Amino acid sequence: MGDNTLRIGLLGCIRFASKFVRTVTQSSNAVIIAISDPSIETANTFAAANNLSPETVSVYGSYEELLNDPRVDAVYLTMLVTQRAKWAVTAAEKKKHLLVEKPPAQNAAEIDKIVEACESNGVQFMDGTIWLHHKRTVNIRETMFDSGLLVDIRHMYSTMTTLVPEQVLERLTKEAMGLAGAIGELGWYPIGAALWAMSYQMPVSVKALPSSVATNSVGTILSCSASLQFGSTETATAIVHCSFLSQLSTDLAISGSKGSTHMNDYVIPYKEDTAWFEYTSGAKFAEMHIGWNMMPERVTVDCSGTEESQEATMLREFVRLVQGIKRGDSEADPRWQEISKKTQLVVDAVKKSVDIGCEVVYL
Amino acid sequence: MGDNTLRIGLLGCIRFASKFVRTVTQSSNAVIIAISDPSIETANTFAAANNLSPETVSVYGSYEELLNDPRVDAVYLTMLVTQRAKWAVTAAEKKKHLLVEKPPAQNAAEIDKIVEACESNGVQFMDGTIWLHHKRTVNIRETMFDSGLLVDIRHMYSTMTTLVPEQVLERLTKEAMGLAGAIGELGWYPIGAALWAMSYQMPVSVKALPSSVATNSVGTILSCSASLQFGSTETATAIVHCSFLSQLSTDLAISGSKGSTHMNDYVIPYKEDTAWFEYTSGAKFAEMHIGWNMMPERVTVDCSGTEESQEATMLREFVRLVQGIKRGDSEADPRWQEISKKTQLVVDAVKKSVDIGCEVVYL
Repeated sequence: MGDNTLRIGLLGCIRFASKFVRTVTQSSNAVIIAISDPSIETANTFAAANNLSPETVSVYGSYEELLNDPRVDAVYLTMLVTQRAKWAVTAAEKKKHLLVEKPPAQNAAEIDKIVEACESNGVQFMDGTIWLHHKRTVNIRETMFDSGLLVDIRHMYSTMTTLVPEQVLERLTKEAMGLAGAIGELGWYPIGAALWAMSYQMPVSVKALPSSVATNSVGTILSCSASLQFGSTETATAIVHCSFLSQLSTDLAISGSKGSTHMNDYVIPYKEDTAWFEYTSGAKFAEMHIGWNMMPERVTVDCSGTEESQEATMLREFVRLVQGIKRGDSEADPRWQEISKKTQLVVDAVKKSVDIGCEVVYL
Repeated sequence: MGDNTLRIGLLGCIRFASKFVRTVTQSSNAVIIAISDPSIETANTFAAANNLSPETVSVYGSYEELLNDPRVDAVYLTMLVTQRAKWAVTAAEKKKHLLVEKPPAQNAAEIDKIVEACESNGVQFMDGTIWLHHKRTVNIRETMFDSGLLVDIRHMYSTMTTLVPEQVLERLTKEAMGLAGAIGELGWYPIGAALWAMSYQMPVSVKALPSSVATNSVGTILSCSASLQFGSTETATAIVHCSFLSQLSTDLAISGSKGSTHMNDYVIPYKEDTAWFEYTSGAKFAEMHIGWNMMPERVTVDCSGTEESQEATMLREFVRLVQGIKRGDSEADPRWQEISKKTQLVVDAVKKSVDIGCEVVYL
């Protein structure tokens, strides 16, 4: 392990964290050196399941112990969303750089506390919205936005739905899911996608669609659609939809004054080693309306190679930023915390709209 | 020309009617025998441009003359939407079967008058919503709905947008476009698609989305999104979007409790001789969330052959129904007028929602 290698600890050993461990294991400049969980059994089981040898990886039965391990440079937080802000702040105070699973907190006020702690302690913050780091995401921006194939965005549609079995829906409590329920857990993605497309210009208003809101008996939001309005003169509208009541869908359609682009797998591509998006620009119906004047163009992005997946590119960016700080070359990059904060502000606004009977909420 | 051949006359010689002429010319059991336009020059130009020989096709300078031609069995109406109901009623009274370009009227009350005239005179009515007749449309129903791959519809998204140059937007008057503007002219398609998917169950309520409504200086609606709520216990929601301000988009996404399906060319397929849709059923993220457990399945429908395009299948259905009536085997089939009426009722409700400040309108 060279001096350049980032030493990472896990706060939380949920099953999903295996993906992160795999990514770190495949990377050349980061390593897992410690894991922790309030249940030492959970931590031990996770270590065994992920081939983390006790000789190289410390297994702790509490987050505090891991945070007190001075060898740990950075932590990856995956505990329940209701716990994340508290532990993110504690970790920052222990000078650990932070990669926090999304959503990183329950509301924007909690994100402010995390950001404040990170800034006071000179540590990097990033949330785990992986798709923003995919090579395809970068490619779409260059192809559609920067090259003028789309021109002004007029309308967007974005979803994140995943089916939860009926008997489990009642167990989605606010303790487990956070106050915003599906809006935080799932809506984070379509809301983030709309903001990404708008280059993080904030919407002027949001509104939950009354017919779309479903809750379980304990009041957790299970399903919600909302419209986001951007701009005052030239307007763009986004429809975002999240639900635990539909089968997996992760659609992103962006319709502009000149072109449009589509993906149905923007959150996690169908396949790890390749991904694509389709677009048209200048499309019209053909003469006599017997077809179109063009076929959609498919752009395929090669992600083969273990360091080309979206997890690997996210980790690489995180390591790059932290290494810059460690070397004293740069300060923490505020870009990622700004993206998290803006996404959370819109999540909060949609949640507020639901709470006040689906009235318009201005931002 | 056999006794079985349906003799068709055109009421209106707009350029777009060339497609219909081509379809009839390619068909084996229908023929154009007359065309008419209030401008005889327009009619003559159309005849020349479409190789309609004066020896076989009568060219009239008024709709009345064509309707008084006793050889004409059926008429295809393409004049301005504001004129369609009046001429449809007149044509029905002259015992002509009716194929009326969509939207067939300006509001549901006008459709009622057309239907009444058709029923009193024993003639068949059909509007020109071509995609409903595409082999693909039938195939999706069988594949997704009838075979249980989709199960309950939860959420739909459907669009019809087409870019009109800025200098032309102001010329979209209510005289040209009808009272509902883009909602009638374009919204007809996504609204019809949602109804089609719901097997023509009517929504319980609709609501225009305030941020989505744009009008020109003479008050014509240029752009609008709306949500449609179906069902009372098991709910399904559709988001429909129509606009003259975005480049061509014709998206239809249907998300169900088990599966989902996508088309981006549901109104007019990219190519005339082939069309496809994609679906997943039982999709989940794969183990460790590094991809999906399946790729979308693409179903391709072969439409090569001159009688397999959606125009040809629409014409075939119309001819079949009219021939049944002419032979005395059957009465006019009310199915198509019911579809038109229901679609128009929802168009009207969305228009009403816009008019009352985007409040909910119950149906």
